[in-house]
Amino acid sequence: MNPGTTINDTFFRRYRELVRKEMIPFQWNVLNDAIDVNIERERNDASIPNEKSHAIANFRIAAGLEKGQHYGWVFQDSDVYKWLEAVAYSLQSTPDDDLKALADGVVDLIEEAQEDDGYLNTYFSITEPEGKYKRLGESHELYCAGHFIEAAVAYHEATNNEKVLNTAKKLADHICNTFGKEEGKICGVDGHEEIEIGLMRLFHLTGEVRYLKEAEFFLRERGQDPEFFDKQWKDGGKMLMGGLASLPKSYFQVHLPVEKQETAEGHAVRLVYMCTALADLAATIKDERLADACRRIWNNIVKRRMYITGGIGSTVLGESFTLDYDLPNDTMYCETCASIGLMFFARQMLRIESKGEYADIMEKALYNTALSGMALDGKHFFYVNPLEVDPKKSKLDPTKSHVKPVRPQWLGCACCPPNLARMITSLDRYIYTEKEDEILVNLFISSDAEFKNGEVTISQETEYPKTGETVIKVNNNGADLIRIGVRLPSWSGKNRLSPDGREYESGSPNGYCYFDINKGEHLIRLEMDMEPKRWYTNPKVSENMGKVAISRGPQVYCMEEADNGEDLHCLYLLRDAKLSYEWKEDLLNGVGFISADGIRYETDEKSGLYFYGKKAEYKKQTIKMIPYYAWANRGKNEMRVWINEKE
Amino acid sequence: MNPGTTINDTFFRRYRELVRKEMIPFQWNVLNDAIDVNIERERNDASIPNEKSHAIANFRIAAGLEKGQHYGWVFQDSDVYKWLEAVAYSLQSTPDDDLKALADGVVDLIEEAQEDDGYLNTYFSITEPEGKYKRLGESHELYCAGHFIEAAVAYHEATNNEKVLNTAKKLADHICNTFGKEEGKICGVDGHEEIEIGLMRLFHLTGEVRYLKEAEFFLRERGQDPEFFDKQWKDGGKMLMGGLASLPKSYFQVHLPVEKQETAEGHAVRLVYMCTALADLAATIKDERLADACRRIWNNIVKRRMYITGGIGSTVLGESFTLDYDLPNDTMYCETCASIGLMFFARQMLRIESKGEYADIMEKALYNTALSGMALDGKHFFYVNPLEVDPKKSKLDPTKSHVKPVRPQWLGCACCPPNLARMITSLDRYIYTEKEDEILVNLFISSDAEFKNGEVTISQETEYPKTGETVIKVNNNGADLIRIGVRLPSWSGKNRLSPDGREYESGSPNGYCYFDINKGEHLIRLEMDMEPKRWYTNPKVSENMGKVAISRGPQVYCMEEADNGEDLHCLYLLRDAKLSYEWKEDLLNGVGFISADGIRYETDEKSGLYFYGKKAEYKKQTIKMIPYYAWANRGKNEMRVWINEKE
Repeated sequence: MNPGTTINDTFFRRYRELVRKEMIPFQWNVLNDAIDVNIERERNDASIPNEKSHAIANFRIAAGLEKGQHYGWVFQDSDVYKWLEAVAYSLQSTPDDDLKALADGVVDLIEEAQEDDGYLNTYFSITEPEGKYKRLGESHELYCAGHFIEAAVAYHEATNNEKVLNTAKKLADHICNTFGKEEGKICGVDGHEEIEIGLMRLFHLTGEVRYLKEAEFFLRERGQDPEFFDKQWKDGGKMLMGGLASLPKSYFQVHLPVEKQETAEGHAVRLVYMCTALADLAATIKDERLADACRRIWNNIVKRRMYITGGIGSTVLGESFTLDYDLPNDTMYCETCASIGLMFFARQMLRIESKGEYADIMEKALYNTALSGMALDGKHFFYVNPLEVDPKKSKLDPTKSHVKPVRPQWLGCACCPPNLARMITSLDRYIYTEKEDEILVNLFISSDAEFKNGEVTISQETEYPKTGETVIKVNNNGADLIRIGVRLPSWSGKNRLSPDGREYESGSPNGYCYFDINKGEHLIRLEMDMEPKRWYTNPKVSENMGKVAISRGPQVYCMEEADNGEDLHCLYLLRDAKLSYEWKEDLLNGVGFISADGIRYETDEKSGLYFYGKKAEYKKQTIKMIPYYAWANRGKNEMRVWINEKE
Repeated sequence: MNPGTTINDTFFRRYRELVRKEMIPFQWNVLNDAIDVNIERERNDASIPNEKSHAIANFRIAAGLEKGQHYGWVFQDSDVYKWLEAVAYSLQSTPDDDLKALADGVVDLIEEAQEDDGYLNTYFSITEPEGKYKRLGESHELYCAGHFIEAAVAYHEATNNEKVLNTAKKLADHICNTFGKEEGKICGVDGHEEIEIGLMRLFHLTGEVRYLKEAEFFLRERGQDPEFFDKQWKDGGKMLMGGLASLPKSYFQVHLPVEKQETAEGHAVRLVYMCTALADLAATIKDERLADACRRIWNNIVKRRMYITGGIGSTVLGESFTLDYDLPNDTMYCETCASIGLMFFARQMLRIESKGEYADIMEKALYNTALSGMALDGKHFFYVNPLEVDPKKSKLDPTKSHVKPVRPQWLGCACCPPNLARMITSLDRYIYTEKEDEILVNLFISSDAEFKNGEVTISQETEYPKTGETVIKVNNNGADLIRIGVRLPSWSGKNRLSPDGREYESGSPNGYCYFDINKGEHLIRLEMDMEPKRWYTNPKVSENMGKVAISRGPQVYCMEEADNGEDLHCLYLLRDAKLSYEWKEDLLNGVGFISADGIRYETDEKSGLYFYGKKAEYKKQTIKMIPYYAWANRGKNEMRVWINEKE
């Protein structure tokens, strides 16, 4: 989209360098079982493999380069593909010959593991060739294929490597020849959406309409035959992942055809992956009915089923959405991958229509639940991103065992760490949306970008989110007026815009303020309202009654035990207390720190568990808050986003 | 204990007649698969059998009277035993020749199903004779044996049936010969405590010390070899119930020897069954170290791990205790059986020492979570007794699928309904505790009782819990002074005691007020404080911060949607509002109704899910409350015990 965008931002540079210098080499070692790493199960489930990754070894075995058995999940291959995709983006911004050589080798290995007919999946090639495509509900074959195709597109764009593109096309052609409504083809879909994203990207790169058509087939076929997976299992496909068959159809989003889906249901990552491809398709073929389906699900998510951190997935069981306004803070899932998927979805929605809300949510997910997925050291990762944690409960209440109070080094189901790596390395693609008639400024990240084949350049200079000012320099070297839409964040009470030094007042019915830019250089200065704010929840959400969340700019804040002592639930923020902001350079790699007057209820052992006829006692205590993304970097401790409030 | 106590109480007569007229015949039909009944799984777990009960058929097959396969849980037999036990108590208070003939027939059948060596368990006799005692962690063989022995003791006491006693002794002797520390015996325990209770009861009836010694062996052996179950499984015992092996040792209370257990751990029913036998043993052999172990676990339960309703078991996973002060109101388990077991435990603790707290908790469990286990019609039963329910969440949030908003007719794991039946029919045994030197008045239930071989009679006349007055008439026909301890409930702010018409002031360091009664008839009038009360929770319990629970007398109250509209979490009770009490004869078979001023926060769809810069709006609303035990008798609706409070 905007391969010409270069990020030189203070806030994100550290993350992007962490990915390049720490995550990519670390993940490479993990994929090769080359280092001793503590692989934790993300849930209390003995069936989750966590002895090692073995992902590269699986490819070597499938390619006939060594002997052995497949190890790990049936979707283990995708860890390699996501690594390759992250490497691609990294090479695009920062060339690195050694890394490129390593990745070229991986491309060679993948090509060797591919079967002659284009089929590619190490589990089935090694362990069970007779089972190919026979249980799509759980096999993740097309899911893995989608990830490979995404990686291949990115790697080809970054390096011009032809082999990776040819391997991807061979795989995609094989899929086009195997799946479809035509006689002799399998008329079914994968249990986990992703192939649709891959095929759309391959279409955008190559212009080959058959890839778009195949993506459209998978999206429109979804939910046409809700029993498809069951029929495959009954036809003798043995179960790999025992629990899947008992999950509701909505887990896989096959309960209804996509155009009839009114709400966000099932596995949260699957849902947003489906929506990403659906919105891409709707924007690409300009289909209003598909666009409406996307809008309905989007609205259901953001108005009824999303945490204030941009987290989605209210229950660990099925890692799923549940129902409107059901947003428990301490048992939810809020998988890192799901928030990343929500960013994918938002980015495609911006192609359908220019509406600031999409970028607002993209920004919310990015600065909160996506970034909270990794530790500040870049080497430890969350799968689950809670809004409330008590380490004692995580340890001893099995209902909360999936809610980890510290980030593990690596996870038995390792989807999130490489997903974060590819998100952070490709962040330049989210800053702007280029359309035929306008360019949208979505995110405020210091960067230099080119549009319209270099005729237009846009640079941003900003210390955001530390400060709320960004200076957008637009250079129009072409003859035509260009229309620039600058997002006015919905969280910002007041936005001051000064184009070329003039004061400017503008309504923004769609969340963007537009400027028609003629030839020459122009400066648009945007000042956002960075005063800390108190957020409340629609009273339909039972869990947040009487509670307040604090934000500053795009960042949601939280209390940690490290700053406030234990039993965070005993603390109340006073309703009228001033929220004092202070930048702390030495804390957590530099964070804005917020403090305010509060009280703490005292525990009195002698009162017993329940008591009547007297009030609990309390004393004054200052409440201290840090940005949510930075929590759990000071050892195991309690954390809370929603804070009790007292008038 | 007090077989001479006859209940003629207004509140309980209805329950006892329901059990006699409805539950016992209904359960008989269920056990015989003679009626079409909707058997629900108590959890979302496809492995729970729910096609039919088949419990009597299992005995007929084991006895060789018909052909067929065993169906149901490995502990299905216990449903029959608990039914027989309830019948025994019922016959004791209300003779019924037809019912006795039916029960005699069941005794005959059980005796026929017993093997020659005394072994008794239909699953293993029918399906897997080679597996006997080979996987005690899950086999429930001794658990079922304990239930049969309990039933046999009760049935013999009620009817003098010799066959049932002989069958039980033959089984108990077989167990004594099979289990023990001696060479050649199995040195291990059952995964689910209950045999210990049965053996203690058989000892109390027969005076045979070997039964007491065997109970003591099982109790002291527990936790000596935490790996015992695993070793059996490794020795080739195949798993019947797959999940059990992955549960922590504490689930079975085998993590430590009982004397070293400091806290209430694991499966709540198992724990209180263990403690019941342990306290019985400690009281019987006057062992202070065992008594201390009981006290420690008791204190941990009631001061740290018990709901205000007397419910225990904070998580569905393992139906277990979790950790101190972890008391979620909407995901807990609070199994009916566990509260019944807590009553068993309390009753035995009163034998160890006269302390009103034991009877306070016994009463709390009885009037709240035990009774809430059944519908007012006596034909529908809860397994799980929540403190907060939203039917929409029970339906659509799988984390809450075990929390049912209406009582099913019968449950796939049918432990609770027959446990309730035997509790209610044997309630006369809980009213008094007769000791060598004193008689304790624990519960306030209209009844006539005899002690000391008829030398002493005590009658109570009361409308409790409708009113707070009970008149205790003591007739001492013997020569000696007798000492009567009348419980002064800890929930009663002020108790007025008038022995023989005099005003009386007394401290009660142990929760009982004592009177030395000389020859003749004496009247002790007790007036308790029945003003509705506001209860608060130790601030260590995060879930109840800012919330209040209302009680009147022994009954905890709750709000239901039927009286208050939906979204109960939007309601706040005002801190200083008067709690108005009114008896409603026509409501829910007659209940005390409490109402008070409150407010309701309004939902405003337009505000979005999260908003800042404005306050939520509210309007006045009267909060209406009914006793907890009577909830869920007006269709599917929301319910809440802990109510938001506003100053």
